[in-house]
Amino acid sequence: VAAPPSVVGSGPVADGPDSDPGGLAYVAARVQGELEDFVDIQRSRLAPIGSDLVPFLDAVQAYVSGGKRLRPAFCWWGWRAAGGDPADERVLHAAAALEWLQGCALAHDDVVDDSDTRRGAPALHRALSSMHRQHRWRGDPYAFGAGTAIMLGDLMLSWADEMFRGSGLPLDAVTAAAPYLDALKSEVVAGQLLDLLEQARAGGTVEGAMRVVRYKAAKYTVERPLHLGATLAGAGSELLVALSEFGLPVGEAFQLRDDVLGVFGEPTVTGKPAGDDLREGKRTVLLARALEGADDRGRSMLERLVGDPALQEDDVERLRAVITESGALDRVEQQITALSDQAQRALAAAPLHEEEARAALSDLAARSIDRRR
Amino acid sequence: VAAPPSVVGSGPVADGPDSDPGGLAYVAARVQGELEDFVDIQRSRLAPIGSDLVPFLDAVQAYVSGGKRLRPAFCWWGWRAAGGDPADERVLHAAAALEWLQGCALAHDDVVDDSDTRRGAPALHRALSSMHRQHRWRGDPYAFGAGTAIMLGDLMLSWADEMFRGSGLPLDAVTAAAPYLDALKSEVVAGQLLDLLEQARAGGTVEGAMRVVRYKAAKYTVERPLHLGATLAGAGSELLVALSEFGLPVGEAFQLRDDVLGVFGEPTVTGKPAGDDLREGKRTVLLARALEGADDRGRSMLERLVGDPALQEDDVERLRAVITESGALDRVEQQITALSDQAQRALAAAPLHEEEARAALSDLAARSIDRRR
Repeated sequence: VAAPPSVVGSGPVADGPDSDPGGLAYVAARVQGELEDFVDIQRSRLAPIGSDLVPFLDAVQAYVSGGKRLRPAFCWWGWRAAGGDPADERVLHAAAALEWLQGCALAHDDVVDDSDTRRGAPALHRALSSMHRQHRWRGDPYAFGAGTAIMLGDLMLSWADEMFRGSGLPLDAVTAAAPYLDALKSEVVAGQLLDLLEQARAGGTVEGAMRVVRYKAAKYTVERPLHLGATLAGAGSELLVALSEFGLPVGEAFQLRDDVLGVFGEPTVTGKPAGDDLREGKRTVLLARALEGADDRGRSMLERLVGDPALQEDDVERLRAVITESGALDRVEQQITALSDQAQRALAAAPLHEEEARAALSDLAARSIDRRR
Repeated sequence: VAAPPSVVGSGPVADGPDSDPGGLAYVAARVQGELEDFVDIQRSRLAPIGSDLVPFLDAVQAYVSGGKRLRPAFCWWGWRAAGGDPADERVLHAAAALEWLQGCALAHDDVVDDSDTRRGAPALHRALSSMHRQHRWRGDPYAFGAGTAIMLGDLMLSWADEMFRGSGLPLDAVTAAAPYLDALKSEVVAGQLLDLLEQARAGGTVEGAMRVVRYKAAKYTVERPLHLGATLAGAGSELLVALSEFGLPVGEAFQLRDDVLGVFGEPTVTGKPAGDDLREGKRTVLLARALEGADDRGRSMLERLVGDPALQEDDVERLRAVITESGALDRVEQQITALSDQAQRALAAAPLHEEEARAALSDLAARSIDRRR
């Protein structure tokens, strides 16, 4: 079991290894602190330009608060796996930068999908539309919210680089890791573009959906964050390959779990309306398998109802029944289990520099996959 | 007069100093080559993910082709002003990265403003909507175009960092310059947010409009590119201050010229419909001065018609007459002249390391300000 380094006076951290397996609470607390300090610096720079910019910075700060901080956690344990010093917290500064990328991705995704909520709170562009309405400003509140959310996403994306470079880690370590940050950023956009293409073409093949899973989720959420941490600690190619063999199946299972929760999740736990993915028409692996396995009646119901923004609760129930009866839910659950087993076997064989990292990564993988939100 | 370094076999470069004052054609040709090489590398990386990504990369490449390349030119002459080696073309690789930032800014701006055209061609999201329509894909072509244009803007913003870091210049030079790239990116977003705020509040003060000009244009287009080039060449603070004293008035005059062209420009030359800024309702310094100087009848016409997307040619003519009669056009032209003179005086006194750079910057300033498109 992971024993996170003890930290004095840095907020709500774990009080022992048992209460914080995988060190997730420890990483989350430190990342939160790093992000707040970073926004304070930005606020002191941008406020002199105009105090009217401050509410935007406050909105951004609120937007990236909370969240599971999985990407920084994988980055941290990639560092530890490569023998990085457990007492060197500069890597957590670099790892926190991944939350700015995630903030940009979520803010822009929510504009693109015109989603109402995020983590149970209003989506960023919705919050900014409300700001416009409250001030009774001129023009369309929706356009103002979307426009400012796009700009703030750009700001967060810029901050990711600035924060990553500003960790204080040696220049050669940062230089070795930077290409992995470049790859992560290009790959996640590639995944998002493929996702929009899948929706537009409504192809619905399992293969097409898995490709989106790999780039939009598996590489972005698990593999590349592991690589970032590991290269910051000077990892060689053997370890990086091993981390891919572990990280990709974890990331794929993570996304398949997300897809199951997007249809069968409990709204009070996920923070999203029931069956939200069905209403949005997301072309997930789960849906592709359902289209493949359903009978004619079921398939035509899926084709007719999935993607209808006005979907009611009873429609959602009927679609869930079709997906279950098609065998898609079972098959996706089996795939999740197989990917999880594959990842654990790869981890067991990986040439890590530290056994503590092996235990923590095993736990972090399990927590990424077996979750209810 | 600038004598650009001679280049063999790198495309259409200037054939002599007289035909290429300011070295603009030389820089533009080299920047175009650097951008094409960079996209080729990205294409070879992303195409294996899916050949269906290639049309997006082609669209991006076409989108950043053309343009005046003013930002790379200021970066290049900032380098030369600080004594950077005229034969070291790695700085042009770094300078070309500014075009990715500009590509992102334009793509996102056009989504935010829902503009139809850019440089006489369809705006990026319009081109992508057309792709959707041509393939008869499912869903709303407009939403597909906006969504993919937002994602491709993010990709360009990421590429800016990757390209800037990948010039091959020494690590300590890149590290010294990086904070100026960070500042540029944060400041341009700040300017864009202030612009959206000005439009929403319809405040219309000259002071408010000048603040947008400073951050969205003057720092982004002139001052920070000069700083980037100069710090890559190891410039100290005395030179950086002098470059600000020259660059800020140049950038302000550049934007005021843009505002004049947005109302009085010749569509066949600007590539934008006549009076486009009036239709969009841009809260420019020109408009603020017109609201200040017009009589009651004129002011109420401005308030009623500016920002009306359905504005006809005769409305545009009447608004032009109001703006001219209010004295706003004269006052803005006087301001442009005063800023231009201020910049030239600052340049004459600046502690440049090279007289050739002084002549080239003088010329580049004049060409940025006295232009018809």
